[in-house]
Amino acid sequence: MTITIAHLGPPGTYTEQAAIFYLNQLTKSTGVEAILCPYPSIAQTLGAVDANSALLAVVPVENSIEGSVTMTLDTLWLLNNLQIQMGLVMPIAHMLISCAASLEDIKIVYSHPQALSQCQGWLEQFLPTVELIPSNSTTEALLKLQHNLTTAAISSQRAAQLYNLPILASGINDYPENFTRFWVVSQTHKAFTLQTDFKKASYSSLAFSLPANLPGALVKALQVFAHLDINLSRIESRPTKRSLGEYLFFIDAEADVSEPQMQSALAELSERTELLKIFGSYNVLQFS
Amino acid sequence: MTITIAHLGPPGTYTEQAAIFYLNQLTKSTGVEAILCPYPSIAQTLGAVDANSALLAVVPVENSIEGSVTMTLDTLWLLNNLQIQMGLVMPIAHMLISCAASLEDIKIVYSHPQALSQCQGWLEQFLPTVELIPSNSTTEALLKLQHNLTTAAISSQRAAQLYNLPILASGINDYPENFTRFWVVSQTHKAFTLQTDFKKASYSSLAFSLPANLPGALVKALQVFAHLDINLSRIESRPTKRSLGEYLFFIDAEADVSEPQMQSALAELSERTELLKIFGSYNVLQFS
Repeated sequence: MTITIAHLGPPGTYTEQAAIFYLNQLTKSTGVEAILCPYPSIAQTLGAVDANSALLAVVPVENSIEGSVTMTLDTLWLLNNLQIQMGLVMPIAHMLISCAASLEDIKIVYSHPQALSQCQGWLEQFLPTVELIPSNSTTEALLKLQHNLTTAAISSQRAAQLYNLPILASGINDYPENFTRFWVVSQTHKAFTLQTDFKKASYSSLAFSLPANLPGALVKALQVFAHLDINLSRIESRPTKRSLGEYLFFIDAEADVSEPQMQSALAELSERTELLKIFGSYNVLQFS
Repeated sequence: MTITIAHLGPPGTYTEQAAIFYLNQLTKSTGVEAILCPYPSIAQTLGAVDANSALLAVVPVENSIEGSVTMTLDTLWLLNNLQIQMGLVMPIAHMLISCAASLEDIKIVYSHPQALSQCQGWLEQFLPTVELIPSNSTTEALLKLQHNLTTAAISSQRAAQLYNLPILASGINDYPENFTRFWVVSQTHKAFTLQTDFKKASYSSLAFSLPANLPGALVKALQVFAHLDINLSRIESRPTKRSLGEYLFFIDAEADVSEPQMQSALAELSERTELLKIFGSYNVLQFS
Protein backbone atom coordinates (compact mmCIF):
# COMPACT_ATOMS: atom_id res chain seq x y z
CA MET A 1 0.00 0.00 0.00
CA THR A 2 1.32 3.44 -0.96
CA ILE A 3 -0.29 6.56 0.42
CA THR A 4 0.12 10.22 -0.54
CA ILE A 5 1.12 12.89 1.99
CA ALA A 6 0.41 16.46 0.87
CA HIS A 7 2.57 19.21 2.34
CA LEU A 8 3.21 22.91 1.94
CA GLY A 9 6.02 23.13 -0.61
CA PRO A 10 8.24 23.54 -2.47
CA PRO A 11 10.81 20.85 -1.52
CA GLY A 12 13.38 22.19 0.94
CA THR A 13 10.92 24.05 3.20
CA TYR A 14 10.68 23.30 6.90
CA THR A 15 7.24 21.75 6.30
CA GLU A 16 8.77 19.26 3.86
CA GLN A 17 11.30 18.34 6.59
CA ALA A 18 8.42 17.72 9.00
CA ALA A 19 6.60 15.62 6.38
CA ILE A 20 9.74 13.53 5.70
CA PHE A 21 10.20 12.94 9.44
CA TYR A 22 6.57 11.83 9.77
CA LEU A 23 6.81 9.62 6.66
CA ASN A 24 9.90 7.83 8.04
CA GLN A 25 8.18 7.18 11.39
CA LEU A 26 5.11 5.90 9.58
CA THR A 27 7.04 3.51 7.35
CA LYS A 28 9.08 2.22 10.31
CA SER A 29 5.99 1.75 12.48
CA THR A 30 3.45 0.35 9.98
CA GLY A 31 5.38 -0.77 6.88
CA VAL A 32 3.16 1.50 4.79
CA GLU A 33 4.94 3.26 1.94
CA ALA A 34 4.22 6.91 1.27
CA ILE A 35 5.08 9.53 -1.30
CA LEU A 36 5.24 13.28 -0.65
CA CYS A 37 3.32 15.76 -2.76
CA PRO A 38 4.14 19.49 -2.36
CA TYR A 39 1.40 22.15 -2.78
CA PRO A 40 1.97 25.89 -3.25
CA SER A 41 -0.33 27.05 -0.39
CA ILE A 42 -1.73 25.84 2.93
CA ALA A 43 -5.28 26.09 1.57
CA GLN A 44 -4.34 23.83 -1.36
CA THR A 45 -2.47 21.38 0.91
CA LEU A 46 -5.50 20.89 3.19
CA GLY A 47 -7.82 21.03 0.16
CA ALA A 48 -5.97 18.03 -1.35
CA VAL A 49 -7.04 15.87 1.62
CA ASP A 50 -10.56 17.26 1.54
CA ALA A 51 -10.80 16.38 -2.18
CA ASN A 52 -9.32 12.86 -1.73
CA SER A 53 -6.16 13.69 -3.70
CA ALA A 54 -4.05 12.85 -0.64
CA LEU A 55 -4.68 10.72 2.46
CA LEU A 56 -2.72 12.96 4.82
CA ALA A 57 -1.52 16.57 4.90
CA VAL A 58 1.28 18.19 6.92
CA VAL A 59 0.84 21.93 7.61
CA PRO A 60 2.49 24.40 10.03
CA VAL A 61 0.31 25.61 12.93
CA GLU A 62 2.43 27.77 15.15
CA ASN A 63 5.96 29.06 15.61
CA SER A 64 7.34 29.85 19.07
CA ILE A 65 8.48 33.33 17.92
CA GLU A 66 6.01 34.41 15.26
CA GLY A 67 2.86 32.82 16.68
CA SER A 68 -0.01 31.21 14.80
CA VAL A 69 -0.03 30.30 11.14
CA THR A 70 -3.43 31.88 10.63
CA MET A 71 -4.08 30.36 7.19
CA THR A 72 -4.06 26.85 8.74
CA LEU A 73 -6.64 27.84 11.37
CA ASP A 74 -8.85 29.68 8.87
CA THR A 75 -8.80 26.78 6.35
CA LEU A 76 -9.51 24.12 8.99
CA TRP A 77 -12.57 26.12 10.08
CA LEU A 78 -13.85 26.34 6.48
CA LEU A 79 -13.41 22.64 5.57
CA ASN A 80 -15.81 20.38 7.48
CA ASN A 81 -14.24 17.05 6.87
CA LEU A 82 -10.78 17.19 8.47
CA GLN A 83 -9.34 15.79 11.71
CA ILE A 84 -5.92 16.21 13.28
CA GLN A 85 -4.06 12.88 13.52
CA MET A 86 -0.84 14.05 15.17
CA GLY A 87 1.21 17.07 16.22
CA LEU A 88 4.91 17.44 15.29
CA VAL A 89 7.34 19.82 17.00
CA MET A 90 10.54 20.70 15.12
CA PRO A 91 13.47 22.97 16.11
CA ILE A 92 14.13 25.71 13.54
CA ALA A 93 17.67 26.85 12.66
CA HIS A 94 18.09 29.43 9.90
CA MET A 95 21.16 29.51 7.66
CA LEU A 96 22.53 32.36 5.57
CA ILE A 97 23.09 30.78 2.18
CA SER A 98 25.14 32.57 -0.47
CA CYS A 99 27.80 32.15 -3.14
CA ALA A 100 29.43 35.39 -1.89
CA ALA A 101 33.01 35.10 -0.62
CA SER A 102 32.24 37.02 2.59
CA LEU A 103 29.46 38.97 4.34
CA GLU A 104 30.89 42.28 3.07
CA ASP A 105 29.97 41.39 -0.52
CA ILE A 106 26.25 40.88 0.18
CA LYS A 107 23.86 43.59 -1.03
CA ILE A 108 20.47 41.77 -0.99
CA VAL A 109 18.98 39.11 1.29
CA TYR A 110 15.90 37.15 0.17
CA SER A 111 13.61 35.08 2.37
CA HIS A 112 10.07 34.45 3.60
CA PRO A 113 8.94 37.45 5.73
CA GLN A 114 8.76 35.23 8.87
CA ALA A 115 12.38 34.08 8.42
CA LEU A 116 13.58 37.67 7.77
CA SER A 117 11.77 38.76 10.91
CA GLN A 118 13.23 35.91 12.99
CA CYS A 119 16.78 36.96 12.01
CA GLN A 120 16.20 40.73 12.31
CA GLY A 121 18.73 41.26 15.13
CA TRP A 122 21.45 39.24 13.40
CA LEU A 123 20.84 41.08 10.11
CA GLU A 124 21.00 44.49 11.82
CA GLN A 125 24.29 43.53 13.48
CA PHE A 126 26.11 41.82 10.61
CA LEU A 127 24.42 43.13 7.46
CA PRO A 128 23.03 46.54 8.49
CA THR A 129 22.94 48.05 4.99
CA VAL A 130 21.56 45.18 2.88
CA GLU A 131 18.19 45.32 1.15
CA LEU A 132 15.73 42.72 2.53
CA ILE A 133 13.37 41.30 -0.11
CA PRO A 134 10.41 39.05 0.83
CA SER A 135 9.76 35.79 -1.04
CA ASN A 136 6.86 33.31 -1.00
CA SER A 137 8.88 30.63 0.82
CA THR A 138 12.38 30.09 2.23
CA THR A 139 13.11 27.80 -0.71
CA GLU A 140 11.91 30.26 -3.36
CA ALA A 141 14.50 32.67 -1.91
CA LEU A 142 17.25 30.22 -2.94
CA LEU A 143 16.11 30.27 -6.54
CA LYS A 144 16.92 34.00 -6.61
CA LEU A 145 20.61 33.38 -5.92
CA GLN A 146 21.60 31.75 -9.22
CA HIS A 147 25.33 31.92 -8.46
CA ASN A 148 25.08 35.67 -7.96
CA LEU A 149 27.99 36.80 -5.74
CA THR A 150 26.18 39.73 -4.04
CA THR A 151 22.92 38.11 -2.93
CA ALA A 152 22.03 35.75 -0.07
CA ALA A 153 18.98 33.81 1.11
CA ILE A 154 17.83 32.66 4.55
CA SER A 155 16.69 29.04 4.46
CA SER A 156 17.22 25.62 6.07
CA GLN A 157 20.32 23.42 6.04
CA ARG A 158 18.40 20.82 4.05
CA ALA A 159 17.49 23.39 1.38
CA ALA A 160 21.15 24.40 1.02
CA GLN A 161 22.10 20.74 0.48
CA LEU A 162 19.18 20.14 -1.91
CA TYR A 163 20.14 23.08 -4.13
CA ASN A 164 23.87 22.51 -3.61
CA LEU A 165 24.56 26.02 -2.30
CA PRO A 166 27.12 27.06 0.35
CA ILE A 167 26.18 28.07 3.92
CA LEU A 168 27.88 31.33 4.91
CA ALA A 169 26.53 31.52 8.50
CA SER A 170 24.61 28.98 10.64
CA GLY A 171 21.92 29.36 13.29
CA ILE A 172 21.37 33.06 12.63
CA ASN A 173 17.90 33.20 14.25
CA ASP A 174 17.73 35.76 17.08
CA TYR A 175 15.98 33.45 19.56
CA PRO A 176 17.67 30.06 20.03
CA GLU A 177 14.40 28.60 21.40
CA ASN A 178 12.79 28.55 17.97
CA PHE A 179 10.32 25.72 17.34
CA THR A 180 7.54 25.19 14.84
CA ARG A 181 4.54 22.99 15.50
CA PHE A 182 2.86 21.12 12.62
CA TRP A 183 -0.36 19.17 12.33
CA VAL A 184 -0.83 15.93 10.37
CA VAL A 185 -4.41 16.04 9.08
CA SER A 186 -6.69 13.43 7.44
CA GLN A 187 -10.37 13.00 6.62
CA THR A 188 -12.58 12.02 9.54
CA HIS A 189 -13.43 8.57 8.29
CA LYS A 190 -9.93 7.71 7.12
CA ALA A 191 -8.03 7.87 10.39
CA PHE A 192 -4.52 6.48 10.14
CA THR A 193 -2.77 5.74 13.41
CA LEU A 194 0.97 5.94 13.79
CA GLN A 195 2.14 3.70 16.65
CA THR A 196 5.02 5.34 18.48
CA ASP A 197 7.13 4.95 21.60
CA PHE A 198 8.00 8.64 21.45
CA LYS A 199 7.32 11.34 24.03
CA LYS A 200 3.56 11.74 24.11
CA ALA A 201 0.97 14.23 25.23
CA SER A 202 -2.74 14.14 24.62
CA TYR A 203 -4.39 17.20 23.17
CA SER A 204 -7.73 18.05 21.60
CA SER A 205 -8.22 21.01 19.30
CA LEU A 206 -11.50 22.77 18.68
CA ALA A 207 -12.89 26.12 17.57
CA PHE A 208 -16.11 28.03 18.14
CA SER A 209 -17.96 31.21 17.34
CA LEU A 210 -20.02 33.01 20.00
CA PRO A 211 -23.55 34.45 20.01
CA ALA A 212 -23.31 38.12 18.93
CA ASN A 213 -23.46 40.92 21.52
CA LEU A 214 -23.57 38.65 24.55
CA PRO A 215 -21.34 40.25 27.20
CA GLY A 216 -19.06 37.79 28.94
CA ALA A 217 -19.77 35.06 26.35
CA LEU A 218 -16.11 34.10 25.97
CA VAL A 219 -15.50 33.74 29.71
CA LYS A 220 -18.72 31.69 30.04
CA ALA A 221 -17.46 29.34 27.35
CA LEU A 222 -13.98 28.98 28.89
CA GLN A 223 -15.38 28.38 32.39
CA VAL A 224 -16.67 25.02 31.15
CA PHE A 225 -13.08 23.77 31.06
CA ALA A 226 -12.07 25.38 34.37
CA HIS A 227 -15.03 23.78 36.18
CA LEU A 228 -14.02 20.34 34.92
CA ASP A 229 -10.31 20.88 35.66
CA ILE A 230 -9.30 20.60 32.00
CA ASN A 231 -6.26 22.74 31.26
CA LEU A 232 -6.19 24.87 28.11
CA SER A 233 -2.71 25.03 26.62
CA ARG A 234 -3.55 27.59 23.96
CA ILE A 235 -6.24 30.04 22.87
CA GLU A 236 -6.15 31.95 19.63
CA SER A 237 -8.70 34.40 18.23
CA ARG A 238 -9.33 34.88 14.51
CA PRO A 239 -11.70 37.33 12.83
CA THR A 240 -14.98 35.83 11.53
CA LYS A 241 -14.46 38.02 8.42
CA ARG A 242 -18.11 39.15 8.82
CA SER A 243 -17.46 42.33 10.75
CA LEU A 244 -14.66 43.99 12.72
CA GLY A 245 -14.75 42.83 16.33
CA GLU A 246 -16.38 39.41 15.72
CA TYR A 247 -14.07 36.46 16.41
CA LEU A 248 -13.67 32.71 16.22
CA PHE A 249 -11.72 31.13 19.08
CA PHE A 250 -9.33 28.20 18.54
CA ILE A 251 -8.50 26.17 21.64
CA ASP A 252 -6.11 23.34 22.49
CA ALA A 253 -7.26 21.42 25.58
CA GLU A 254 -5.09 18.91 27.46
CA ALA A 255 -7.55 16.01 27.30
CA ASP A 256 -8.88 13.40 24.90
CA VAL A 257 -12.39 13.88 23.46
CA SER A 258 -13.17 10.28 24.43
CA GLU A 259 -12.65 11.02 28.16
CA PRO A 260 -15.89 11.46 30.16
CA GLN A 261 -14.73 14.85 31.55
CA MET A 262 -14.10 16.14 28.05
CA GLN A 263 -17.44 14.75 26.80
CA SER A 264 -19.21 16.74 29.54
CA ALA A 265 -17.19 19.84 28.69
CA LEU A 266 -18.07 19.62 24.99
CA ALA A 267 -21.78 19.03 25.68
CA GLU A 268 -21.83 22.11 27.92
CA LEU A 269 -19.72 24.12 25.48
CA SER A 270 -22.08 23.47 22.57
CA GLU A 271 -24.83 25.14 24.64
CA ARG A 272 -22.72 28.25 25.17
CA THR A 273 -21.39 28.73 21.65
CA GLU A 274 -22.95 29.59 18.29
CA LEU A 275 -21.04 27.03 16.21
CA LEU A 276 -18.60 24.47 17.65
CA LYS A 277 -16.16 22.41 15.55
CA ILE A 278 -13.99 19.65 17.00
CA PHE A 279 -10.77 18.91 15.14
CA GLY A 280 -9.92 15.71 17.02
CA SER A 281 -7.52 14.38 19.67
CA TYR A 282 -3.88 13.59 19.02
CA ASN A 283 -0.42 13.04 20.46
CA VAL A 284 2.61 15.22 19.83
CA LEU A 285 5.86 13.85 18.42
CA GLN A 286 9.02 15.83 19.22
CA PHE A 287 11.79 15.70 16.66
CA SER A 288 14.64 13.71 18.12
CA MET B 1 3.19 74.68 18.01
CA THR B 2 4.11 71.99 15.48
CA ILE B 3 4.16 68.36 16.48
CA THR B 4 5.49 65.29 14.66
CA ILE B 5 3.31 62.25 13.95
CA ALA B 6 5.28 59.09 13.11
CA HIS B 7 3.52 56.50 10.95
CA LEU B 8 4.27 53.27 9.14
CA GLY B 9 5.30 54.35 5.64
CA PRO B 10 6.02 54.92 2.87
CA PRO B 11 3.54 57.66 1.79
CA GLY B 12 0.49 56.16 0.07
CA THR B 13 -0.05 53.29 2.54
CA TYR B 14 -3.32 52.85 4.40
CA THR B 15 -1.55 53.83 7.64
CA GLU B 16 -0.56 57.16 6.10
CA GLN B 17 -4.26 57.70 5.21
CA ALA B 18 -5.19 57.03 8.82
CA ALA B 19 -2.47 59.43 10.04
CA ILE B 20 -3.67 62.18 7.66
CA PHE B 21 -7.24 61.71 8.86
CA TYR B 22 -6.13 61.98 12.48
CA LEU B 23 -3.91 65.01 11.74
CA ASN B 24 -6.84 66.84 10.11
CA GLN B 25 -9.12 66.15 13.08
CA LEU B 26 -6.39 67.28 15.46
CA THR B 27 -5.74 70.55 13.63
CA LYS B 28 -9.48 71.28 13.37
CA SER B 29 -10.07 70.50 17.04
CA THR B 30 -7.03 72.07 18.71
CA GLY B 31 -5.39 74.39 16.18
CA VAL B 32 -2.14 72.47 16.63
CA GLU B 33 -0.10 72.01 13.47
CA ALA B 34 1.46 68.65 12.75
CA ILE B 35 3.81 67.10 10.24
CA LEU B 36 3.85 63.42 9.24
CA CYS B 37 7.03 61.38 9.37
CA PRO B 38 7.00 57.92 7.70
CA TYR B 39 9.07 55.04 9.15
CA PRO B 40 9.93 51.76 7.38
CA SER B 41 8.66 49.42 10.12
CA ILE B 42 6.15 49.30 12.97
CA ALA B 43 8.98 48.80 15.49
CA GLN B 44 10.72 51.94 14.23
CA THR B 45 7.43 53.93 14.18
CA LEU B 46 6.69 53.15 17.84
CA GLY B 47 10.40 53.46 18.67
CA ALA B 48 10.35 57.08 17.36
CA VAL B 49 7.82 58.03 20.08
CA ASP B 50 9.73 56.07 22.72
CA ALA B 51 12.93 57.96 21.76
CA ASN B 52 11.22 61.40 21.69
CA SER B 53 11.70 61.80 17.91
CA ALA B 54 7.91 62.09 17.48
CA LEU B 55 5.09 63.04 19.86
CA LEU B 56 2.55 60.62 18.39
CA ALA B 57 2.63 57.44 16.29
CA VAL B 58 -0.10 55.85 14.14
CA VAL B 59 0.19 52.07 13.67
CA PRO B 60 -2.21 49.35 12.42
CA VAL B 61 -3.55 46.96 15.09
CA GLU B 62 -6.05 44.68 13.44
CA ASN B 63 -7.78 43.98 10.14
CA SER B 64 -11.28 42.49 10.02
CA ILE B 65 -10.13 39.78 7.55
CA GLU B 66 -6.48 39.09 8.38
CA GLY B 67 -6.63 39.56 12.16
CA SER B 68 -4.00 41.09 14.42
CA VAL B 69 -0.96 43.03 13.31
CA THR B 70 1.30 41.06 15.61
CA MET B 71 4.32 43.38 15.32
CA THR B 72 2.30 46.20 16.94
CA LEU B 73 1.33 44.01 19.91
CA ASP B 74 4.86 42.61 20.34
CA THR B 75 6.49 46.08 20.20
CA LEU B 76 4.00 47.66 22.60
CA TRP B 77 4.79 44.89 25.10
CA LEU B 78 8.55 45.50 24.79
CA LEU B 79 8.47 49.31 25.15
CA ASN B 80 7.44 50.40 28.65
CA ASN B 81 6.65 53.99 28.02
CA LEU B 82 3.74 54.06 25.57
CA GLN B 83 0.01 54.69 25.96
CA ILE B 84 -2.82 54.47 23.45
CA GLN B 85 -4.48 57.87 22.90
CA MET B 86 -7.14 56.88 20.37
CA GLY B 87 -8.41 54.14 18.09
CA LEU B 88 -9.19 54.78 14.39
CA VAL B 89 -11.33 52.49 12.21
CA MET B 90 -10.94 52.83 8.43
CA PRO B 91 -12.69 50.98 5.58
CA ILE B 92 -10.22 49.29 3.20
CA ALA B 93 -10.82 49.16 -0.57
CA HIS B 94 -8.10 47.61 -2.74
CA MET B 95 -7.50 48.78 -6.32
CA LEU B 96 -5.76 46.98 -9.16
CA ILE B 97 -3.33 49.57 -10.48
CA SER B 98 -1.59 49.06 -13.82
CA CYS B 99 -0.52 50.74 -17.05
CA ALA B 100 -1.74 47.64 -18.95
CA ALA B 101 -4.51 48.21 -21.52
CA SER B 102 -6.61 45.31 -20.18
CA LEU B 103 -6.56 42.46 -17.65
CA GLU B 104 -5.44 40.00 -20.37
CA ASP B 105 -2.06 41.71 -20.67
CA ILE B 106 -1.12 41.28 -17.00
CA LYS B 107 1.51 38.65 -16.18
CA ILE B 108 2.66 39.71 -12.66
CA VAL B 109 0.82 41.25 -9.69
CA TYR B 110 2.83 42.83 -6.83
CA SER B 111 1.53 43.69 -3.38
CA HIS B 112 1.93 43.26 0.36
CA PRO B 113 1.12 39.61 1.27
CA GLN B 114 -1.95 40.72 3.29
CA ALA B 115 -3.39 42.61 0.31
CA LEU B 116 -2.69 39.67 -2.06
CA SER B 117 -4.43 37.38 0.41
CA GLN B 118 -7.43 39.72 0.77
CA CYS B 119 -7.96 39.69 -3.02
CA GLN B 120 -7.27 35.97 -3.52
CA GLY B 121 -10.77 35.10 -4.81
CA TRP B 122 -10.85 38.02 -7.25
CA LEU B 123 -7.35 37.16 -8.54
CA GLU B 124 -8.28 33.48 -9.03
CA GLN B 125 -11.39 34.52 -10.99
CA PHE B 126 -10.02 37.31 -13.18
CA LEU B 127 -6.25 36.70 -13.28
CA PRO B 128 -5.90 32.93 -12.69
CA THR B 129 -2.51 32.53 -14.39
CA VAL B 130 -0.59 35.58 -13.13
CA GLU B 131 2.45 35.32 -10.87
CA LEU B 132 1.87 36.89 -7.43
CA ILE B 133 4.98 38.55 -5.96
CA PRO B 134 5.04 39.84 -2.37
CA SER B 135 6.37 43.31 -1.55
CA ASN B 136 7.17 45.07 1.74
CA SER B 137 4.18 47.44 1.47
CA THR B 138 1.27 48.16 -0.89
CA THR B 139 3.09 51.33 -1.96
CA GLU B 140 6.40 49.58 -2.67
CA ALA B 141 4.45 47.38 -5.09
CA LEU B 142 3.65 50.48 -7.17
CA LEU B 143 7.32 51.30 -7.58
CA LYS B 144 7.71 47.96 -9.41
CA LEU B 145 5.34 49.04 -12.20
CA GLN B 146 7.49 51.75 -13.84
CA HIS B 147 5.20 52.04 -16.86
CA ASN B 148 5.56 48.32 -17.57
CA LEU B 149 2.52 47.17 -19.57
CA THR B 150 2.39 43.59 -18.23
CA THR B 151 2.57 44.17 -14.46
CA ALA B 152 0.03 45.37 -11.89
CA ALA B 153 0.00 46.27 -8.19
CA ILE B 154 -2.71 46.12 -5.52
CA SER B 155 -2.80 49.32 -3.50
CA SER B 156 -5.07 52.14 -2.33
CA GLN B 157 -6.84 54.80 -4.40
CA ARG B 158 -4.72 57.46 -2.70
CA ALA B 159 -1.51 55.65 -3.69
CA ALA B 160 -2.64 55.52 -7.34
CA GLN B 161 -3.26 59.28 -7.27
CA LEU B 162 0.02 60.00 -5.46
CA TYR B 163 2.06 58.08 -8.04
CA ASN B 164 -0.15 59.18 -10.94
CA LEU B 165 -0.94 55.62 -12.08
CA PRO B 166 -4.21 54.34 -13.61
CA ILE B 167 -6.74 52.18 -11.72
CA LEU B 168 -7.76 49.14 -13.79
CA ALA B 169 -10.27 47.66 -11.29
CA SER B 170 -11.76 49.05 -8.04
CA GLY B 171 -12.79 47.42 -4.77
CA ILE B 172 -11.30 44.03 -5.67
CA ASN B 173 -11.14 42.77 -2.05
CA ASP B 174 -13.05 39.50 -1.57
CA TYR B 175 -14.87 40.60 1.59
CA PRO B 176 -16.68 43.95 1.31
CA GLU B 177 -16.69 44.30 5.13
CA ASN B 178 -12.98 45.06 5.22
CA PHE B 179 -11.86 47.44 7.97
CA THR B 180 -8.52 48.14 9.62
CA ARG B 181 -8.18 49.44 13.15
CA PHE B 182 -5.26 51.72 14.06
CA TRP B 183 -3.92 53.05 17.35
CA VAL B 184 -2.60 56.56 17.98
CA VAL B 185 0.14 56.16 20.59
CA SER B 186 2.11 58.65 22.71
CA GLN B 187 4.40 58.59 25.74
CA THR B 188 2.63 58.22 29.08
CA HIS B 189 3.49 61.66 30.38
CA LYS B 190 2.81 63.49 27.13
CA ALA B 191 -0.89 62.70 26.67
CA PHE B 192 -2.50 64.75 23.91
CA THR B 193 -6.28 64.82 23.85
CA LEU B 194 -8.23 65.24 20.66
CA GLN B 195 -11.70 66.71 21.38
CA THR B 196 -14.26 65.19 19.05
CA ASP B 197 -18.01 65.04 18.48
CA PHE B 198 -17.59 61.77 16.60
CA LYS B 199 -19.07 58.36 17.37
CA LYS B 200 -17.35 57.25 20.55
CA ALA B 201 -16.70 54.10 22.49
CA SER B 202 -14.60 53.66 25.57
CA TYR B 203 -11.99 50.91 25.59
CA SER B 204 -8.97 49.95 27.66
CA SER B 205 -6.17 47.76 26.34
CA LEU B 206 -3.84 45.67 28.44
CA ALA B 207 -1.64 42.61 28.25
CA PHE B 208 -0.34 40.05 30.71
CA SER B 209 1.78 36.95 31.09
CA LEU B 210 0.71 34.10 33.38
CA PRO B 211 2.55 32.08 36.04
CA ALA B 212 4.06 29.01 34.32
CA ASN B 213 2.41 25.59 34.62
CA LEU B 214 -0.63 26.80 36.54
CA PRO B 215 -3.66 24.94 35.13
CA GLY B 216 -6.67 27.17 34.54
CA ALA B 217 -4.58 30.34 34.97
CA LEU B 218 -6.05 32.04 31.90
CA VAL B 219 -9.66 31.39 32.91
CA LYS B 220 -8.92 32.60 36.46
CA ALA B 221 -7.56 35.84 35.01
CA LEU B 222 -10.51 36.37 32.67
CA GLN B 223 -13.07 35.63 35.41
CA VAL B 224 -12.05 38.90 37.06
CA PHE B 225 -13.80 40.78 34.26
CA ALA B 226 -16.84 38.48 34.16
CA HIS B 227 -17.43 38.87 37.93
CA LEU B 228 -17.41 42.66 37.58
CA ASP B 229 -19.60 42.66 34.44
CA ILE B 230 -16.90 44.18 32.26
CA ASN B 231 -17.19 42.98 28.68
CA LEU B 232 -14.08 41.95 26.78
CA SER B 233 -14.29 42.91 23.12
CA ARG B 234 -11.11 41.11 22.08
CA ILE B 235 -8.52 38.63 23.30
CA GLU B 236 -5.35 37.80 21.41
CA SER B 237 -2.52 35.45 22.38
CA ARG B 238 1.10 35.98 21.38
CA PRO B 239 4.09 33.74 22.08
CA THR B 240 6.40 34.92 24.88
CA LYS B 241 9.32 33.89 22.59
CA ARG B 242 10.81 32.06 25.59
CA SER B 243 9.44 28.60 24.83
CA LEU B 244 6.78 27.00 22.63
CA GLY B 245 3.44 26.98 24.44
CA GLU B 246 4.05 30.06 26.63
CA TYR B 247 1.86 33.04 25.76
CA LEU B 248 1.13 36.69 26.45
CA PHE B 249 -2.53 37.70 26.32
CA PHE B 250 -3.67 41.03 24.89
CA ILE B 251 -7.13 42.19 25.95
CA ASP B 252 -9.48 45.04 25.02
CA ALA B 253 -12.04 45.71 27.78
CA GLU B 254 -15.11 47.92 27.34
CA ALA B 255 -14.41 50.22 30.29
CA ASP B 256 -12.20 53.13 31.32
CA VAL B 257 -9.29 52.42 33.68
CA SER B 258 -10.46 55.37 35.83
CA GLU B 259 -13.84 53.67 36.56
CA PRO B 260 -14.07 52.04 40.04
CA GLN B 261 -15.16 48.68 38.55
CA MET B 262 -12.14 48.63 36.29
CA GLN B 263 -9.83 49.67 39.14
CA SER B 264 -11.05 46.66 41.13
CA ALA B 265 -10.63 44.39 38.12
CA LEU B 266 -7.04 45.52 37.54
CA ALA B 267 -6.09 45.16 41.22
CA GLU B 268 -7.47 41.62 41.22
CA LEU B 269 -5.90 40.85 37.84
CA SER B 270 -2.41 41.87 38.99
CA GLU B 271 -2.70 39.17 41.70
CA ARG B 272 -3.52 36.50 39.11
CA THR B 273 -0.92 37.36 36.46
CA GLU B 274 2.87 37.25 36.29
CA LEU B 275 3.37 40.63 34.59
CA LEU B 276 0.54 43.05 33.76
CA LYS B 277 0.91 46.05 31.44
CA ILE B 278 -1.85 48.63 30.91
CA PHE B 279 -1.78 50.47 27.60
CA GLY B 280 -4.41 53.08 28.52
CA SER B 281 -8.04 54.00 27.83
CA TYR B 282 -9.25 55.62 24.64
CA ASN B 283 -12.15 56.35 22.32
CA VAL B 284 -12.55 55.07 18.78
CA LEU B 285 -13.02 57.39 15.82
CA GLN B 286 -14.76 55.90 12.77
CA PHE B 287 -13.77 57.32 9.40
CA SER B 288 -16.70 59.30 8.05
